[in-house]
Amino acid sequence: MKLLEDRIKAEGKIYPGNIVKVDGFVNHRIDVKLLKEIGKEFYRLFADSGVNKIVTIEASGIAFACATAMELGCDVVFAKKSGHKNVGDDVYTEKVISFTKGREYDIVISKDYLSKEDKVLIIDDFLADGNAAKGLIGIVEASGADVVGIGIVIEKGFQPGGALLRGIGIRVESLAIIDSIDGNTITFR
Amino acid sequence: MKLLEDRIKAEGKIYPGNIVKVDGFVNHRIDVKLLKEIGKEFYRLFADSGVNKIVTIEASGIAFACATAMELGCDVVFAKKSGHKNVGDDVYTEKVISFTKGREYDIVISKDYLSKEDKVLIIDDFLADGNAAKGLIGIVEASGADVVGIGIVIEKGFQPGGALLRGIGIRVESLAIIDSIDGNTITFR
Repeated sequence: MKLLEDRIKAEGKIYPGNIVKVDGFVNHRIDVKLLKEIGKEFYRLFADSGVNKIVTIEASGIAFACATAMELGCDVVFAKKSGHKNVGDDVYTEKVISFTKGREYDIVISKDYLSKEDKVLIIDDFLADGNAAKGLIGIVEASGADVVGIGIVIEKGFQPGGALLRGIGIRVESLAIIDSIDGNTITFR
Repeated sequence: MKLLEDRIKAEGKIYPGNIVKVDGFVNHRIDVKLLKEIGKEFYRLFADSGVNKIVTIEASGIAFACATAMELGCDVVFAKKSGHKNVGDDVYTEKVISFTKGREYDIVISKDYLSKEDKVLIIDDFLADGNAAKGLIGIVEASGADVVGIGIVIEKGFQPGGALLRGIGIRVESLAIIDSIDGNTITFR
């Protein structure tokens, strides 16, 4: 998605350790015009896939999941990170290792909101090692629902998540794939 | 907002301690049709207020902030809860006591994304004791920006947050105000 790649080139901030910060338009301040276009692009990619539910994970995935759901006309369920009193006990749960936080946490979705009839599109802002995505796939499959595909705003192509997920037959559509960061130069796939 | 009140009556689950769970359409599964209507209602209420930025707090506020921002045509900034490596050090921060989690945490917004020219609408899903809202107001005021008002999806009118905020001159618009819960009967203001 050229609009997104251009924005990453213009405003992404590069830090040591192959970190690209896009908090100016993706995961702290959200550019709502770009958000709408991202929703439309995921709609274009998945409109014919029979999706009836979008699953994401709090917090940064929620905006993109909702923008996509508005186009597809379906509901969103967002996985919560552990420590929520008000989810109840009847949940699907998986353990996830966070790349940015450097620790392990549980993610949960209430069993009330996934069923074996669901055709689920997973949406998230970033794909790096694929840990959050694997956790969400585990939860969706535990419910008996189908994972139709995964829509990612920015994939870090030099980390193993994308290859790993595609390798097990999951359809992964990333709107921008960063293949390398060399000094101040970002190269897209 | 009658659509929302009817939904709370039909699907809200009442638990001991005046807890109303609306995780079926507000804060775990999000009904995207209702979400759009909520965005339109906040637009109707605040369209003439000169809002150029919406501020919310992760995670459940993000969907409603984005739906409203899509109508108003402005950007969203969401406050992060502490522990984020990737926000940087140059931040506004406030301490917040969580009603549902029963503990204190820090909320932060990067100084890059608020300025004294901003006219800010604060959006959140719930207002109870008003602690999150007070924290967000503190951050917005620390930046020199104006708080134009606060838009709340569900206010618990029997808790002190709404009266406290209105008492200090803040315009608070809640789409549903629950005044009392008696057995299985919810009474709206």
